[in-house]
Amino acid sequence: MTTTTPREVRRAHAGPTAGLADGYAQANLIAVPRDWAYDVLLFAQRNPKPCPILDVTDEGSSGTVLADNADLMRDLPRYRVWEHGELRGEFTDAAPFWRDDLVAFLIGCSFTFESRLRAAGVPLRHVEQGRNVPMYVTTIPCRPAGRLHGPMVVSMRYVPAALVGTAWEVTARMPAVHGAPVHVGDPAELGIPDLDRPDFGDRTEPHDGDVPVFWACGVTPQAAVVASKPPFAITHAPGHMFVTDVPDTAYAL
Amino acid sequence: MTTTTPREVRRAHAGPTAGLADGYAQANLIAVPRDWAYDVLLFAQRNPKPCPILDVTDEGSSGTVLADNADLMRDLPRYRVWEHGELRGEFTDAAPFWRDDLVAFLIGCSFTFESRLRAAGVPLRHVEQGRNVPMYVTTIPCRPAGRLHGPMVVSMRYVPAALVGTAWEVTARMPAVHGAPVHVGDPAELGIPDLDRPDFGDRTEPHDGDVPVFWACGVTPQAAVVASKPPFAITHAPGHMFVTDVPDTAYAL
Repeated sequence: MTTTTPREVRRAHAGPTAGLADGYAQANLIAVPRDWAYDVLLFAQRNPKPCPILDVTDEGSSGTVLADNADLMRDLPRYRVWEHGELRGEFTDAAPFWRDDLVAFLIGCSFTFESRLRAAGVPLRHVEQGRNVPMYVTTIPCRPAGRLHGPMVVSMRYVPAALVGTAWEVTARMPAVHGAPVHVGDPAELGIPDLDRPDFGDRTEPHDGDVPVFWACGVTPQAAVVASKPPFAITHAPGHMFVTDVPDTAYAL
Repeated sequence: MTTTTPREVRRAHAGPTAGLADGYAQANLIAVPRDWAYDVLLFAQRNPKPCPILDVTDEGSSGTVLADNADLMRDLPRYRVWEHGELRGEFTDAAPFWRDDLVAFLIGCSFTFESRLRAAGVPLRHVEQGRNVPMYVTTIPCRPAGRLHGPMVVSMRYVPAALVGTAWEVTARMPAVHGAPVHVGDPAELGIPDLDRPDFGDRTEPHDGDVPVFWACGVTPQAAVVASKPPFAITHAPGHMFVTDVPDTAYAL
C-alpha cells in the first residue's frame, strides 16, 4: 500500500497507476471534438457497465469537478492520440495536441475498487507482481450509439476461487466504477483466446487455485474509436489513469 | 390496486397514471431536436437525481427498447408542446407535432416505486384521494449543461412520520427512478411557499401525523425548457406518464 497523494500522482507519476493514491477514485479519459460528443455520451449511457460517466467537461475546458486545479491535458501519466481510428502515438503530455473544440469524458476505472478488494482480503496479483492489469478486447458487442460502435473491453484479475464471491460482493456495490464482474471463469465465453496475451497491459501470473474474473473496462471507448474512426480523439494509455481527488467511498452504495 | 396492463394504459388511458399498471416502470418524456440532444443528455448526466435516463431514441424514431411496439408520439395519455420555452398547448396525440429530427429521452418516474411503497405499508395519499401527485418547482438550481439550465422540480408525498424511514429505505434502492428523497419535512428549505398550491398535479390532503417527503422529479427538464427556451420540445404532461413493459424490479438494486 502506498501513501502517495492524488496530486502527487497527477504531477509526477509516469507509469501505470494501479495501487497508487490508495482510497481515491481513478478515471479513464476520452476527449473528442464537440461534433462527436453526443455519440460518446449516448454510447456511455447505453453501455453503463464499461462506460460509467463520472464527469464531462465543458467544450474547450480541461478542468474537471473531480479534482482541484487539475489539467486533463497534462495530469495523466500517458496519453494516446488517435486520428481516424489509427493510433498516432503515445505521449506523456497531451497539451500539444489538445484542441479548443474537445469535450473530455472521465469514465470510472476498476482500479478504484482495488483498495476495497484488498481490504476484503482479495489479493491483487498485478499489484503484487508490479505489473499493469491485463485487458482484453472481447467479442461482446456494445450497444451502438450514433456513429459509435465496437466491442466491450474487459480487465482481468486472478482471484482465489474461495474469494470470488467476496470480490463479486465488494465490486457489485460500486457500479460507477464498473460494478460486478461481467464474467467468471472461462475466457472463451468472452472470445478471449489466450489469457497470457492481453491486448493491453501486462500478463499476470495466477497462483494455484486462482480463477480469472473479468470486469467491464473503460478502455472500451478506445475499441470504439478503432472500430468507428472518429476524425480525432485523445485517450489515456491503458492503465495510466487520471487520479481524482474523490474518495472511493463516494462511489460505493 | 389495479390489474391494468402497460399496453392497455398506453393504448386507452387518458388521465394521470399513478396507481396504474401496478409493478411496471413509468417514464417521463422529453423530445428535442437533434441539435439540442447533447445538451439534454449532458443535463441528465449532471443531474442524475431528477433526470435518471432509462432510454434515448435514435433520431427520427419514436420506438423504445422499454416497450414492445410502443409509439412515443401516441402512447402517452397527454403531451405538452413547447416553442421557445412557451407552452403551446396540451394534446392527447403528439403525432401532428412530431418531427424527423427529434430525439426522445425517457426518464425514470417516481410512480415506479409506488407499488413497493404500498407493499411496505406506506400509504399513497394521492392514489387514495384519486388525485395526481403534487409537484413543485424548487429554488434548488440544477447543474447547467450547455444551453440548458433551470431549477429542480420535486414530487411530494405525505407519509406518516413513523414510516418516513421505510419510505427512505425502499426508494433509496431505486436510483433509476429518483432514489431516496431529496428532503423531508420543511418545504421552505426547497423554496416552496405553500404545499396547497402545487405547480403541477393536484393538492393532496395530509392525515394527522403525516410529514411531507420530497423526491426529485422528472418534470425537471420542463422547468429547464421554460428557463432555457430551446426552439422546440415535446414532453409528457406532468403525471401523465409513458408506461413501460419493464417490471419495477429491474430498477431495484
